[in-house]
Amino acid sequence: MAWLECVPNVSEGRDPRVLDRMTARLTGRTGVRLLDVHRDADHHRSVFTLAGEAPALTAAVLDLCAEALDAIDLRHHAGAHPRIGAVDVVPFVPLGRTTMDEAVAAARATGRAIAERFGIPVLLYEEAATAPHRRRLEQVRRGRFEGLADKLRTPDWAPDFGPAAPHPSFGAVAVGARGILVAYNINLATERLEVGTAVARAVRASSGGLPHVKAMALPLPARRLVQVSMNLTNVEITPIAVVFDAVAREAARYGVAIAESEVVGLVPAAALADVAARYLRVAGWSPDKILDSRLGPD
Amino acid sequence: MAWLECVPNVSEGRDPRVLDRMTARLTGRTGVRLLDVHRDADHHRSVFTLAGEAPALTAAVLDLCAEALDAIDLRHHAGAHPRIGAVDVVPFVPLGRTTMDEAVAAARATGRAIAERFGIPVLLYEEAATAPHRRRLEQVRRGRFEGLADKLRTPDWAPDFGPAAPHPSFGAVAVGARGILVAYNINLATERLEVGTAVARAVRASSGGLPHVKAMALPLPARRLVQVSMNLTNVEITPIAVVFDAVAREAARYGVAIAESEVVGLVPAAALADVAARYLRVAGWSPDKILDSRLGPD
Repeated sequence: MAWLECVPNVSEGRDPRVLDRMTARLTGRTGVRLLDVHRDADHHRSVFTLAGEAPALTAAVLDLCAEALDAIDLRHHAGAHPRIGAVDVVPFVPLGRTTMDEAVAAARATGRAIAERFGIPVLLYEEAATAPHRRRLEQVRRGRFEGLADKLRTPDWAPDFGPAAPHPSFGAVAVGARGILVAYNINLATERLEVGTAVARAVRASSGGLPHVKAMALPLPARRLVQVSMNLTNVEITPIAVVFDAVAREAARYGVAIAESEVVGLVPAAALADVAARYLRVAGWSPDKILDSRLGPD
Repeated sequence: MAWLECVPNVSEGRDPRVLDRMTARLTGRTGVRLLDVHRDADHHRSVFTLAGEAPALTAAVLDLCAEALDAIDLRHHAGAHPRIGAVDVVPFVPLGRTTMDEAVAAARATGRAIAERFGIPVLLYEEAATAPHRRRLEQVRRGRFEGLADKLRTPDWAPDFGPAAPHPSFGAVAVGARGILVAYNINLATERLEVGTAVARAVRASSGGLPHVKAMALPLPARRLVQVSMNLTNVEITPIAVVFDAVAREAARYGVAIAESEVVGLVPAAALADVAARYLRVAGWSPDKILDSRLGPD
């Protein structure tokens, strides 16, 4: 049975009653464990981290969609984070010996089930995408909920499953398969969004920055900070510490310091150990020296 | 069956043929996994990290003692690290649901077997100690191999098992039970041993420094460095990053920088993640956010 991580992102980060209901739906299920819930009021978005077997994950995602359909109306939703759906993205990640093909199969089965059950349009992305221009999540989400009706009408963006028009209150959902990534945000001690934008542009791969780094700037008005929100898609090639130091250096060019950072969801032990080994200047560091990783099955 | 870590320290860090033979003896055994071998030529000492079931660990340690008896003569041994035996210390550490009582039982069974098989005196230490003054390894090792004959003759230091005189070439062995510790060395960019001694004194608990830190200074003449060699016995209370920063600050008082550090054996993921979270200024960090730790059995 395929053993997968599944990380649904939901466009609700403020109402505790709604989030508690969603959490309850994902808790105590057979074949699925809820590992983490990350709520963000500024983003108006929450991230649930699940691990389990493919069919049980599909069932859990369907229940989460039912709850979101009931509770979220994107026509009255404003948050810092771009989104196209009430449940916005549902990535499947292979764990252990599970293959990417199995993650793709889980994504497609889940996408099909969401469309059939709720009449919601589904776009497959990354490894599950059905065309090269639909692989990157940034492209899938471009235009956001507000531009979705026009977008889904174009042949390039016809949904993989479901109707060619957004669900009125829910929008659409991107369902994909990808490798493990680290969702990592650095909050800058400034309210000047343009500083965040400049830093994001300097560090992200798509504008000539660090490989395997996606970055965008978001305002966090309640905290009076600006966030550089990132996905690090290969922390072996571009380690977290390198990204942190690059952001610190770029921000310093504008006289701005790092206030804090945050990890969204879970992060692999080896990625954090690498940060520690750099800070501590450990000679001859190897992830083989992490006790916990060596005590599992061979 | 008790699941334990066992970390024998051997007084040989230079001859690759001897170390290869020892490694071979500890490899491919039923019920035991060899997780790490740390060789140190300056210390003239190596550390083997094993995990397994108690009786299989006892058998592995006996084979290691046989090899050490054959290959090591402490009368002709000089290294930077204090020692009383060819196999010098054998700590047992409970893993998972194993209790400290089970680790103590494994230590006592192993100590008794070493004494019976080889006629080597055995001193039990830490949780396995038979008197309060014999708990601390520093006290057990005080006087080193060279002072051992006089020491074992005093009533306070009569061996727990075996004869009241050192084995002529092997010496004696300290066998104990303890919690997980981090063996962590920081190498200072100086050849002045007195700087290392001052730093060790400033940071260690026994002279009023940081709680749960043991520290001593050792010369590393081949590398032209001085080492602050430490055991961190509770990294939740005194995190690795706090120790690193304290050593850096104390050394700076003498105009000395940190050249590098090293981890001896294995280190828990959470201890390194804590260092990373501090360096990255992660808000709301919790070890629950380490992916690997969450994927094991509940």
